[in-house]
Amino acid sequence: MKMSALFAPTLKENPAEAEVISHSLMLRAGMIRQLSSGIYNILPLGLRSLEKIMNIVRRELNHADGQELLLPALQPGELWKETGRWDIYGPELIRFQDRRERDFCLGPTHEEVITDIARKEIRSYRQLPLLLYQIQTKFRDEIRPRFGVMRSREFIMKDLYSFDRDYEGLKVSYQKMYDAYSKIFASCGLEYIAVRADSGVIGGDVSHEFLIIADSGEEKVMRCPKCLVASTQEISDCPECHAGMEEKRGIEVGHIFQLGTKYSESMKAYFVDQDGKEKPLIMGCYGIGIGRTMAAAIEANHDENGIKWPWNIAPYEIIIIPVKLKNQAGMELAESISQQLAHQGYETIWDDREVSAGYKFKEADLIGFPIQVIVGEKALKNGTLEIKIRSNGKRIECTREQLVSVIKKIKDELVIL
Amino acid sequence: MKMSALFAPTLKENPAEAEVISHSLMLRAGMIRQLSSGIYNILPLGLRSLEKIMNIVRRELNHADGQELLLPALQPGELWKETGRWDIYGPELIRFQDRRERDFCLGPTHEEVITDIARKEIRSYRQLPLLLYQIQTKFRDEIRPRFGVMRSREFIMKDLYSFDRDYEGLKVSYQKMYDAYSKIFASCGLEYIAVRADSGVIGGDVSHEFLIIADSGEEKVMRCPKCLVASTQEISDCPECHAGMEEKRGIEVGHIFQLGTKYSESMKAYFVDQDGKEKPLIMGCYGIGIGRTMAAAIEANHDENGIKWPWNIAPYEIIIIPVKLKNQAGMELAESISQQLAHQGYETIWDDREVSAGYKFKEADLIGFPIQVIVGEKALKNGTLEIKIRSNGKRIECTREQLVSVIKKIKDELVIL
Repeated sequence: MKMSALFAPTLKENPAEAEVISHSLMLRAGMIRQLSSGIYNILPLGLRSLEKIMNIVRRELNHADGQELLLPALQPGELWKETGRWDIYGPELIRFQDRRERDFCLGPTHEEVITDIARKEIRSYRQLPLLLYQIQTKFRDEIRPRFGVMRSREFIMKDLYSFDRDYEGLKVSYQKMYDAYSKIFASCGLEYIAVRADSGVIGGDVSHEFLIIADSGEEKVMRCPKCLVASTQEISDCPECHAGMEEKRGIEVGHIFQLGTKYSESMKAYFVDQDGKEKPLIMGCYGIGIGRTMAAAIEANHDENGIKWPWNIAPYEIIIIPVKLKNQAGMELAESISQQLAHQGYETIWDDREVSAGYKFKEADLIGFPIQVIVGEKALKNGTLEIKIRSNGKRIECTREQLVSVIKKIKDELVIL
Repeated sequence: MKMSALFAPTLKENPAEAEVISHSLMLRAGMIRQLSSGIYNILPLGLRSLEKIMNIVRRELNHADGQELLLPALQPGELWKETGRWDIYGPELIRFQDRRERDFCLGPTHEEVITDIARKEIRSYRQLPLLLYQIQTKFRDEIRPRFGVMRSREFIMKDLYSFDRDYEGLKVSYQKMYDAYSKIFASCGLEYIAVRADSGVIGGDVSHEFLIIADSGEEKVMRCPKCLVASTQEISDCPECHAGMEEKRGIEVGHIFQLGTKYSESMKAYFVDQDGKEKPLIMGCYGIGIGRTMAAAIEANHDENGIKWPWNIAPYEIIIIPVKLKNQAGMELAESISQQLAHQGYETIWDDREVSAGYKFKEADLIGFPIQVIVGEKALKNGTLEIKIRSNGKRIECTREQLVSVIKKIKDELVIL
């Protein structure tokens, strides 16, 4: 694709409204634009990154026996009255009446809806365990929306719900999700910590938060450098190996809960067990903030010039930059390289614009393509191309013939599958 | 995947609430469940088909230079007041106030939001033409929701918006979309008609509706059997070749509009043209109902036993049915065939359940897998497998060794790319 055709309206200056670096860089790189307080238009570069995160999530959840479905945003008030959350949830829950004056809300989460499906469709222990998930838009009228897509009023979340016969089954499902989450964040190229947490308004007994490690993180966590045990408490030694704990800061991107029977009891979601007895379904719920994960990835991977995307969640992988303005041979070479690499399966952009080389380099760094292929004077003289690796700043020279194998080698080193 | 693990709660009886066959079959095949009037849970089989339609849409729109983004469902009332649609739109527009008592609505369409982006980000003719689209959830508080996902209150739509310098450009963009739509519906395996239509509440000068041909269609269209010219008017001869027109019935699944300056004038979305003058952007908008397309596909492809999915939008492609209950060798053979075909890239289910062969055949027909591979008594005796093609009822016998090539041949005949 040509850079001139890409709809990525970049900004030179740091936008005044951005309090955190990920918010600022997403605005500057043309990934998002605010429509209203806490409500964002996701522009093409932002959506491409989100889509990649969603597809990693899908891959790992399907691998862990999750089945994807899609539940409505519009939820009838009656369901929320059954669980009592219609009263407990404050003004964060967006409520309205339909044209027949029936109460509705916009789902901030879907325990009521999924439990309603379960009580109607699950009859027998033979249907269990069952893991159902969706990737869907949620709504919360935050009192203070901030940090861009990190705390917004409309956001994309993955929420999975597990249904089991008993608490032993719940533990198995919970561990499956714990493991899937670990793979998901690792595959996004992110360093994460899982810590025991409070269950809050969702309810239930055991829960863990997944945090992406970043200096700007809002939460303080202690982690053992040896056995990686983590805790939110300032206890100084590791409870496992008694080594000294290190302080880390993290951004919450996922939360998993052992709900038990909180929703199945209040909504009468029962199944018939092998012994012929009716029992409540034992539930768990498991969330990942998709937009938050993208923001956290930027918080953890950037420098003063812009974003340093981990390969697997970069909007595009490679930009080809012809340096000499109005040099037909250089432009043609850049386009031909772009097409060759696209043919090899890489996601490429070539910068066809009539702007200075300096401007092109600045934007390439800002947007954060993992690899820049620079078509400079040497390329035209003796065929030498320059490759810049965004994450570590390394530069490598190679010939056109070597290009594909050099890029494959760089990718193999950068990618965590 | 095992059939016993698939969350597809089928129904034996025709549900009383279903007025049309697609609604009835989607409920019976376990693809959807109603949450509230006109609001549906999309279960895994339904979502898989929707995802395939969405990916065909993406492929063709990207090919036609469309760029995907994602706009919010929450829209500030002020934007709708600028275009006057806050007053024009009746109670179909779902409105509420946020916690700070500001007017909001849930987007039934996104002309205001996209024009707001355009007026802020498009400055120069150099940025044109620009084609932006999204696949997103829309909300309309229909006075009479009916026909399942065909006329619902929450639904998935693809909406694309084109921005051009002049009307010549608009015509080019419009034709691009017309061609892309033709490819999309053909690739979904559907027979369609495009007819000139009324622009209604969206506004603008020229518009076309895309209809899927189905006997149960709500709209009557006259079509020339020779040159395929179509019209909604009862004029008896073809305006092009003067042959007699045939009456067809169709279901509206797409609508494309030449908007002109309706939104860019009222919202002051101007650009600077090559001659240095400020001019309003010339716009078009182009919608496809994703859920409607799925429903129309069923209306056009079913028999008394269930759905006959076109290959490209089938939730799964192949079901392997071991016939003999509790026969270990038959079960193992079915699983091994399922894995072999999955390894070849096919989407397979094998029916591991301890239910009668008749029950398995009925459900396979109902859900509408394009191919059934039957592991019957012959398979265990002399290795002969039976293949049933759902769309035409043909049965073919082959050996295990021939299976992959026979299935490839059937697929090649069934698939329209």
